[in-house]
Amino acid sequence: MRTMLMALFTTFLSLSPADAAASAGPPMVRIAEIEVDPAHLDAYKAFLAEEQEAAVRLEPGVLMLHSVALADHPNQIRLLEVYADHAAYKAHIASPQFQKYKTSTANMVTALKLVETDPILLCAKAGLAGATPTFACR
Amino acid sequence: MRTMLMALFTTFLSLSPADAAASAGPPMVRIAEIEVDPAHLDAYKAFLAEEQEAAVRLEPGVLMLHSVALADHPNQIRLLEVYADHAAYKAHIASPQFQKYKTSTANMVTALKLVETDPILLCAKAGLAGATPTFACR
Repeated sequence: MRTMLMALFTTFLSLSPADAAASAGPPMVRIAEIEVDPAHLDAYKAFLAEEQEAAVRLEPGVLMLHSVALADHPNQIRLLEVYADHAAYKAHIASPQFQKYKTSTANMVTALKLVETDPILLCAKAGLAGATPTFACR
Repeated sequence: MRTMLMALFTTFLSLSPADAAASAGPPMVRIAEIEVDPAHLDAYKAFLAEEQEAAVRLEPGVLMLHSVALADHPNQIRLLEVYADHAAYKAHIASPQFQKYKTSTANMVTALKLVETDPILLCAKAGLAGATPTFACR
C-alpha cells in the first residue's frame, strides 16, 4: 500500500526539486468539527475565511485549509486542515492570523472537536480550477 | 459575507482567464463517510487511491479528492470531494475509474454516508507542497 502511494507520489507530483524536498514526509491532516452559534454564523464564516486565506498565502507549511457548512445543519462547520508537518502546525497556531481568528470567534463557537487522521491520498488540481492542466497527489 | 468571499476569490485566484471562466460558480463539495471491513482495508485504500488519482488527472471537473483514515478508527474513511459543478459530478460517477472503484470495493464497504455541504472557502497551495509560492482560494 505504502509502496503504491509512494509510486503515485513519485509519478504524479510533477514539481520542481525544491517542492519535492519540501514535501518529503507525510503531511499532518486533521478534521475540525465546529458548531457555531447561529446568531453569529455570518460573522464567524467571515473570520474563518479571512484566516484560511492568510494562512495558506503567508505560511509555507500550511498546504490546505478547506471549510464547508453541512447543508442540513448550516451551523455545523467542517474544516480539513493540511500542514506540511507538526512543526508547521505549531507555527500556524502561533501566527497572527490564527490568533486573530481564535480570539475573535471565541464567543461564537459552541463546540469544537479535533479529529486526528492519517492521510491516504490528497489530490488536487493546481489552482482549484477545472481548466488548469496540472494537478498533484501526495 | 458573499461579497467578502467573492473579493477573496477575485483577489487571490490568480489564474489565467481560462481558469477563471471554468471556476465561475460555486463548486459542489461533499463529505463521504465510509466504513470499511478491516479485513479488506489495505485493498480498499489501494482501489480508492487509484481512483482518486485517475479522476483528478483525467476529469476536468474533478477539482479535488482528499481521503483520510480516522486515527482512532482506521477503518473509518473520510473523503472530501470537490467537483466544478453537478454536471462534473454526474460525469465522474459514469467514468471508468469510478465504476472500477465502485465495483471492486462493493464487498469491502460496510457503511456509506454522503454528507452534502455548502463550501465556505477552499484554499490550497498549488502542487500541495510548502515550497510552492502560488496558491488559490475559491
